[in-house]
Amino acid sequence: MRIMGIDPGLATVGYGLVDTSRPRYPACVAAGAVVTARDLPIAERLLEIQQDLDGLLREYQPDEVAVEDLFFVNNITTGMQVAMARGCILATLASRGLAVHAYVPMAVKQAVTGSGRAPKREVQEAVRQMLGLERIPKPDDAADALAVALCHQQHRGLRNLVPGRAEGARGR
Amino acid sequence: MRIMGIDPGLATVGYGLVDTSRPRYPACVAAGAVVTARDLPIAERLLEIQQDLDGLLREYQPDEVAVEDLFFVNNITTGMQVAMARGCILATLASRGLAVHAYVPMAVKQAVTGSGRAPKREVQEAVRQMLGLERIPKPDDAADALAVALCHQQHRGLRNLVPGRAEGARGR
Repeated sequence: MRIMGIDPGLATVGYGLVDTSRPRYPACVAAGAVVTARDLPIAERLLEIQQDLDGLLREYQPDEVAVEDLFFVNNITTGMQVAMARGCILATLASRGLAVHAYVPMAVKQAVTGSGRAPKREVQEAVRQMLGLERIPKPDDAADALAVALCHQQHRGLRNLVPGRAEGARGR
Repeated sequence: MRIMGIDPGLATVGYGLVDTSRPRYPACVAAGAVVTARDLPIAERLLEIQQDLDGLLREYQPDEVAVEDLFFVNNITTGMQVAMARGCILATLASRGLAVHAYVPMAVKQAVTGSGRAPKREVQEAVRQMLGLERIPKPDDAADALAVALCHQQHRGLRNLVPGRAEGARGR
């Protein structure tokens, strides 16, 4: 089983692929980020996200994909941009026949550190340890995306323990 | 010159095409709406919007496209959904090499009625009159999209009167 985690954004889309064939020792297959040029029109940046993500899906052929859900604090403009990017990501996943598993940031933190309020650095260190990596993956968005993938691994494991809850338990 | 106006949404994307070869008598070429099924996952609805819009672009070959800009009042969830749909629309336009002209709702109302605070019904009646139609186009989203197209016709006309302002004056 190969799980792809995605941390959406307009400037940077983090991605991380985890192999869970040995469930207790998940392995990092790849991690990185799609970065779009700030001087391009938004429409072209969104198109680039779709094209690059599609290339990653073809290259890495994930079995399941988990995407971090929107969660807003202050800036509505940034929120709208992330939502636009997220929409493009979801459509691209659907075009490849992949179902989307969504997790709010708190669920992701909870899954990898045991606390929904863990600071960013702690989440990244947990990712490093769980995947047996020497260093925390860079950029931050890649580490975050790996956390989303690990969160999904955990949730789908739990779902499999509780027959009949498969559809309902998608992290929100 | 054929202008396409788009009124974005997740459940309904209004579109309207206007022929401006006789600038003082713009004509309605087509108007309608892409409607997505409420019982489908959001990712599939977004993909449908992209595919259907792409089909419309191929069929009607607009020279320029104007999209209504986001404007939020209350419901953040609806706002996020509209933003996701809007992102997919923008990426589809970019994939066809079309630049996006964005107008906030107030600019659209101002352009067709002379008042940025005109009620919806008045905007639709203005659209009907400007296009010489017998009835107000249905659904509402189609009429709104035609208003966006007419707004863009007006703005691009103004831009052409003021040399050197072509890039800056995009309605926001």
